[in-house]
Amino acid sequence: MRAAITAIGGYLPPDILTNADLEKMVDTNDEWIRSRTGISERHILKGEGLGTSDMAVEAVKVLCEKRGISPMDIDLLICATVTPDHLFPATANIICDKIGAKNAWGYDLGAACSGFLFAVATGSQFIETGKCKKVVVVGADKMSSIVDYTDRATCVLFGDGAGAVLLEPTEDDNGIMDSILKTDGHGRHYLYQKSGGSVNPSTAETVANREHFITQDGQPVFKAAVMGMADVSAEIMEKNNLTSDDVAWLVPHQANLRIIDATARRMGVGSEKVMINIHKYGNTTSATIPLCLCDWESQLKKGDNLVLAAFGGGFTWGAIYVKWAY
Amino acid sequence: MRAAITAIGGYLPPDILTNADLEKMVDTNDEWIRSRTGISERHILKGEGLGTSDMAVEAVKVLCEKRGISPMDIDLLICATVTPDHLFPATANIICDKIGAKNAWGYDLGAACSGFLFAVATGSQFIETGKCKKVVVVGADKMSSIVDYTDRATCVLFGDGAGAVLLEPTEDDNGIMDSILKTDGHGRHYLYQKSGGSVNPSTAETVANREHFITQDGQPVFKAAVMGMADVSAEIMEKNNLTSDDVAWLVPHQANLRIIDATARRMGVGSEKVMINIHKYGNTTSATIPLCLCDWESQLKKGDNLVLAAFGGGFTWGAIYVKWAY
Repeated sequence: MRAAITAIGGYLPPDILTNADLEKMVDTNDEWIRSRTGISERHILKGEGLGTSDMAVEAVKVLCEKRGISPMDIDLLICATVTPDHLFPATANIICDKIGAKNAWGYDLGAACSGFLFAVATGSQFIETGKCKKVVVVGADKMSSIVDYTDRATCVLFGDGAGAVLLEPTEDDNGIMDSILKTDGHGRHYLYQKSGGSVNPSTAETVANREHFITQDGQPVFKAAVMGMADVSAEIMEKNNLTSDDVAWLVPHQANLRIIDATARRMGVGSEKVMINIHKYGNTTSATIPLCLCDWESQLKKGDNLVLAAFGGGFTWGAIYVKWAY
Repeated sequence: MRAAITAIGGYLPPDILTNADLEKMVDTNDEWIRSRTGISERHILKGEGLGTSDMAVEAVKVLCEKRGISPMDIDLLICATVTPDHLFPATANIICDKIGAKNAWGYDLGAACSGFLFAVATGSQFIETGKCKKVVVVGADKMSSIVDYTDRATCVLFGDGAGAVLLEPTEDDNGIMDSILKTDGHGRHYLYQKSGGSVNPSTAETVANREHFITQDGQPVFKAAVMGMADVSAEIMEKNNLTSDDVAWLVPHQANLRIIDATARRMGVGSEKVMINIHKYGNTTSATIPLCLCDWESQLKKGDNLVLAAFGGGFTWGAIYVKWAY
């Protein structure tokens, strides 16, 4: 028994933050942002009291409608996020409550930008053992809640969004074929949120020092990402005897256009096979990969070989080989 | 193929907070605390810059020593916690870095007081499919980092601690036999950390309003917990044709002595079969169940039927049936 992605859904909040908007907020400019990152604009969730779950709910609703199922049919919902609504309860529980998924259990999974891949690998185990029949994996982040809009190095990078996939059992020769997942906690020194956890609980001082925002030392992260994402993508091709001709699509985490390009080159796949929407959405962290699948859904064909690849804070990284199932 | 718990480890920080200490901090008294909760003292992690990972590291080291394995042998480490060191990177990644588990990948799992059970159920899937050979499941929380020591209703309840179990494949008729896991996000209104997530990001105001601490509406949580934990424990016995005579041990989440008593009564098991250490540790959230297993390890016999049961924020709850493997 294998797990297959049988439906997908995505959601972007309506408000858009352009490079021109950012030029008015920090010392930066459109040309610099586009040439260094590939990003032109990103969506931002605005509205008092709205959190990551509010975007995730919309993505899961789309998915249920597409597949013609009721939220009551969901057995398990895993939410990958670094921006949960609250530290507890789990955002997964809140999503299930809001959509009426009364028969589902679920939890949040934290692995930064690789969270969605780690959650797909986890959800597919529950399908393979027969423990669950319908698993929803959500990747959703309201990055604007932890972005320091006075830090020109990071504030241009991130956007808000949510994506979701449905995993169901299949006996066909397609679905989630393989995964290679890795972490290296030494990377914790280069990309982190300093305060708000148990090491540095929230105080007036941690807030005043802007320690609840993303802190990134760009160069070491970039170097590790280029190597990690390219290596693991090549590794999963080799392990599964896939040539570059066999690969229909590279579905990369959207952190930086140059990391994506390096990965595609290493795999030997041309740019026509690479899903890129970073210019529209920026880095939506857990949501990048499912949002790519949504944007390209109409072009995907049953049997297409997809390599999903990510790298992020932790460091965490990995690749999943998917044979598209519909 | 089945997953079995093949080693356990636990850690309590040396500093102790007694009921007598709390009498000096808030308007409460030892007799009231003991009669309402069963708690006499709890351990507290003190020390600048120390977080949940620092306790978890000690628990995992104990586990590796007991089993005679190197941290390099670990394939996957899942850390259940509501008090991660940071929102990101994952505390699992930090633990792996600190112990030198260079071959492991891992992530954090958020499901409040049921986190450890949910993580054991998840880890065992990776064993059952053959994807991993050695999975470490950690339950660790530095609750003192989110306890409001001016709120007499909650500050008496919680303590700090960490526990860990090693899951390995077995072909014997023992191990993780079954699990029933549930969530009801309607419970989010009664037990939560209001701020510090994406709904209410950290500000000077959220800190001043003490919104980064545990908020609990005790009565609805108590009622739901008594019913949820007792029902699911009875359900897993029935599903697996276990009579009360068949059950060697109830291993309950340690939130409140009266919830534990109600569960034992519902299962028909006498108090001599119930692991209770709440008087020494309080509610250590993700760590309660593995810390019970540690305290009772010498009394466990191969083939013993254990029912692990928990209820917590979310709401999340569940039971796991374990046939002890060593």
